[in-house]
Amino acid sequence: MTGKRRRVVIVGAGFGGLAAAKALKATPVDVVVVDRTNHHLFQPLLYQVATAALSATDIAVAARTLLRRQANTAMIMGEVTGVDHKRRCVILSDGSEICYDWLILATGAAYSFFGHPEWSREACVLKSLDDALDIRRRLLCAFEAAERAGPARTVAPTFVVVGGGPTGVEMAGALAEMTRQTLRREFRHTNPESARVILYEAGPRVLSAFPENLSAYAAQALAELGVEVRTGSAVEDIGEGRVRVGGETLETAVILWCAGVAARPAAEWLNVEAARNGAVVVGPDFAVAGHEGVYAIGDVCHYAVGDRPLPALAPVAKQQGRWVGRQIAAVAAGRRSSKTAFRYQDWGTMAVIGRSRAVAVLGGRHLRGVTAWLAWSLVHLMLLVDFRSRLTVYINWTWAWFTRGRGARLITGIRRRSG
Amino acid sequence: MTGKRRRVVIVGAGFGGLAAAKALKATPVDVVVVDRTNHHLFQPLLYQVATAALSATDIAVAARTLLRRQANTAMIMGEVTGVDHKRRCVILSDGSEICYDWLILATGAAYSFFGHPEWSREACVLKSLDDALDIRRRLLCAFEAAERAGPARTVAPTFVVVGGGPTGVEMAGALAEMTRQTLRREFRHTNPESARVILYEAGPRVLSAFPENLSAYAAQALAELGVEVRTGSAVEDIGEGRVRVGGETLETAVILWCAGVAARPAAEWLNVEAARNGAVVVGPDFAVAGHEGVYAIGDVCHYAVGDRPLPALAPVAKQQGRWVGRQIAAVAAGRRSSKTAFRYQDWGTMAVIGRSRAVAVLGGRHLRGVTAWLAWSLVHLMLLVDFRSRLTVYINWTWAWFTRGRGARLITGIRRRSG
Repeated sequence: MTGKRRRVVIVGAGFGGLAAAKALKATPVDVVVVDRTNHHLFQPLLYQVATAALSATDIAVAARTLLRRQANTAMIMGEVTGVDHKRRCVILSDGSEICYDWLILATGAAYSFFGHPEWSREACVLKSLDDALDIRRRLLCAFEAAERAGPARTVAPTFVVVGGGPTGVEMAGALAEMTRQTLRREFRHTNPESARVILYEAGPRVLSAFPENLSAYAAQALAELGVEVRTGSAVEDIGEGRVRVGGETLETAVILWCAGVAARPAAEWLNVEAARNGAVVVGPDFAVAGHEGVYAIGDVCHYAVGDRPLPALAPVAKQQGRWVGRQIAAVAAGRRSSKTAFRYQDWGTMAVIGRSRAVAVLGGRHLRGVTAWLAWSLVHLMLLVDFRSRLTVYINWTWAWFTRGRGARLITGIRRRSG
Repeated sequence: MTGKRRRVVIVGAGFGGLAAAKALKATPVDVVVVDRTNHHLFQPLLYQVATAALSATDIAVAARTLLRRQANTAMIMGEVTGVDHKRRCVILSDGSEICYDWLILATGAAYSFFGHPEWSREACVLKSLDDALDIRRRLLCAFEAAERAGPARTVAPTFVVVGGGPTGVEMAGALAEMTRQTLRREFRHTNPESARVILYEAGPRVLSAFPENLSAYAAQALAELGVEVRTGSAVEDIGEGRVRVGGETLETAVILWCAGVAARPAAEWLNVEAARNGAVVVGPDFAVAGHEGVYAIGDVCHYAVGDRPLPALAPVAKQQGRWVGRQIAAVAAGRRSSKTAFRYQDWGTMAVIGRSRAVAVLGGRHLRGVTAWLAWSLVHLMLLVDFRSRLTVYINWTWAWFTRGRGARLITGIRRRSG
């Protein structure tokens, strides 16, 4: 038999990490995928879990299950806290180590509070399944508290979304639909329709990465749904149940932080050059300079095409993962690595505002309204990881579309055992 | 217009409480349903959420949604902590009060640790959705920890189920299927098939409420699935990661407590006679003696037919709720209350052991195996509260049946915000 097989460690079971693992399926190496959670998450639809339209199981699946038929690959649920590059090991939070011959960092990004980490106590972010379930609980509890207060004292809650990028726009739109449509006839004392949804964007327009005409359409569509869109409004302070913008303090039930994003601390682990957002600066083959056999892909890497970094999108991470996986496969099999440089295949960018409202740039064409929404639905349904999710998501969507209902309106996670 | 309408307060949005509320739909009274959670839970399938076969949204739906079209009914999410019977108010944990003309207590039962409340720190119970998600997390984390420990140190975990009633049998069977079938090919270092599932029952046989031949069948079916069934084995102590039975201490990853049940503290609220399990003793019309207009139904009431109390089953609670609701409706409408005494319509009792294995007593006939399992599936599918749940549960079941997969294998609720 051959000697000890070489090992590829992949940190992160997101789009990038899984694509890299799959590209190594037939290669005679051991692959170890490490993730803090046990699941692969379809992040583009996470806001629908936060707003109770989809269930957690609709958009997440055990990473182990996705890798089941890939005999050379093991999955470890654990939190990587550092890299010992001399000994070529990643270090987990329990002190254990996993050594590598090749290391692919695909740890993604987290929300950044622009030097105000204390804001994270009050403001919710939307990156993990637990984040989404936390937001769902807070949103639903805000209405329950208003209803419990009774007819005399009832004021419908105010929700604040900070950041007018795709996530902020999607959250604000979904929230407005939830309050205006789904909850409409279900309360006796509270009028959910009078709940305010305010979207603050520091820049001059929402969806600033999109063409101006689509930004304008999105702002208009949000306003029609009942969202108060406030551009040129930077948040100055966030405290318990309040937010300060332009010198004015507003009471708010829930604050959703969809503003700055920063890469997770992989650059610190390696002590290498980082871009402004903390991402690891990589070469054209995603290699980290000075660290042989170490690659960074997806949101945690800064990969510039010309002078523009590639956007933080699932297809980018997926394509980069597949490309790096194939390069390692070639080297491990004793072949020269492919000479084909990485080229991002642009599938376009989209943002959904609500039922039948979306914007998209596909192949240079600007789409909006129902056309963009249909394109969005189709692409997301096709991208969903396994058949079962696709089918149940389809049923949930169809059901919600016709009934304007939201089937996942469960308040869970209040720390209390039934007793 | 007429004067102030009289109010019926219903505590608990389970099978009994909701049935009572629905029976009052067309009655000129205000109905207020109070529950600690915001959802109605299909408890008979809760063990399937705990073992990752179904998603939380498959078996729970916002109580508010179920009562949406019932204009005279309000739903309040709140925890009742007492009853001021002189002033005819229920008191909530936040100090607010809801006054009643009629009060229906439908608060159900909780697990009881036989005078060992400290066991509840280690042993999991299965009553609420949060309980089920907590169990799911612990079960899945046990395997993840074993896998993380690596090939050298790996021992597959041991799971202990305490109590051989229907819940204990269902949990043990589902656990064995999960370890033997679903997880089989997904781990590289751990062999989930070598995980032990031990069912302790203090009495001489499992499913003691069923005929002896069905108990024997259940014990046999459990053993075939790989469950170690230990009857005549009372648990003596429970500590961190260990359980003592018959003088021997066993290390265990998860302890599931499916033994003693006690009614929730409604009898204390009213300061009235309680049965041995804490249930409120009620008259033939479910009225609480000495408390005019106060009724108790479902698991929280002790309602004896002859010398035997009715079993703690969903159909019992449902029928009692409907009957009491109709009595109040008659009185509120100025009619005499019906003279028809309550008669429990026995739909039979069933317990499922695994895929295609169940026992049932239906109309005096003893069923077992596939026949009982089909009857069980059919009845539970029909009983599910709304169409959407029924459809997605059906898909999830069919999918799981053919693939032996479990689609809800998500570890959530580890208190950590993505950062």
